[in-house]
Amino acid sequence: MNRDEALAIVKKQLTEHRYLHTVGVMETAIKLADKYGADKKKAELAAIFHDYAKFRPKEEMKEIIIREGMPGDLLDYNSELWHAPVGAFLTEKEAGINDIEVLDAIRYHTSGRPGMTLLEKIIYLADYIEPGRHFPGVDEVRDLVQTSLDIALIKSVQNTIMFLMKKGQPVFPASFQTYNDLVMNKGD
Amino acid sequence: MNRDEALAIVKKQLTEHRYLHTVGVMETAIKLADKYGADKKKAELAAIFHDYAKFRPKEEMKEIIIREGMPGDLLDYNSELWHAPVGAFLTEKEAGINDIEVLDAIRYHTSGRPGMTLLEKIIYLADYIEPGRHFPGVDEVRDLVQTSLDIALIKSVQNTIMFLMKKGQPVFPASFQTYNDLVMNKGD
Repeated sequence: MNRDEALAIVKKQLTEHRYLHTVGVMETAIKLADKYGADKKKAELAAIFHDYAKFRPKEEMKEIIIREGMPGDLLDYNSELWHAPVGAFLTEKEAGINDIEVLDAIRYHTSGRPGMTLLEKIIYLADYIEPGRHFPGVDEVRDLVQTSLDIALIKSVQNTIMFLMKKGQPVFPASFQTYNDLVMNKGD
Repeated sequence: MNRDEALAIVKKQLTEHRYLHTVGVMETAIKLADKYGADKKKAELAAIFHDYAKFRPKEEMKEIIIREGMPGDLLDYNSELWHAPVGAFLTEKEAGINDIEVLDAIRYHTSGRPGMTLLEKIIYLADYIEPGRHFPGVDEVRDLVQTSLDIALIKSVQNTIMFLMKKGQPVFPASFQTYNDLVMNKGD
């Protein structure tokens, strides 16, 4: 599937604002793939589809999570997490994309997971730092990614966890596990 | 065992500074037990013995963790965590205390755990706020504990996790699980 076809498919699923975000993630992901030696075509495709399920009704997402045997504890945490695994599922089912690396990059773009692949890291970070993002700490991550994908990723996962904790909200266990995995296995 | 006997036993195990801390934890724990309806005698005993193993050699603690089948992932995390479960073990073995509520309050005083008992919460917090403690955020927790043990506990667990994350250190999974358990099950 080429870029224009893919963009046309997701455009119908998204608000204008979220579509512009998606284009920003795509451009950022391609740059990161180029810089860090990932497959640019896969990065492009995963980025385009990463928010495919963002505006599905909660009830539909919940039904899919249960029916497809996705991790049940997802339902105990913020529904903002649901669109990632549901998006991977629907990208395969409705758009016919069956590259598991691309689907996993969609699946884990919000929570992360221990042992993230290069492509998964790129999509997670591109989503965090694309040019349309404006929040405290984003510029620091943009700087860090110039020198280390892993250090930038650690900072973004940290920021996300601390943001939730400051609000007294639960944190999805995979995010904690991702943080620990990254700091315990980082190079240098 | 009465207070003086217990204090005499732990005094031999501790530095002067850590002994004074222990007395502070004891006094604070008794006050909290009185305020929140826990057993004051158990709070006193758990507080006195909470740091019993603090100055054991790392190699001895490691050997006990392995030999006694304590959670193996303890060894992957900061050795500061080890004295709590090892302390519970040695308090039973060497000091002959076999009250499981007291031993569990010692065992979980550093990591916490999901489903903490009232006594466990009191020892965790007393250790955090005793008068000898001086660090950013401690006064806020001292204030919070006047009105809610759980809210004070959430804040102290949050502070501990965020302190480690800001330093880029791994966080023991039980601490994360304790945080989630507390925020997902708190009243109000």
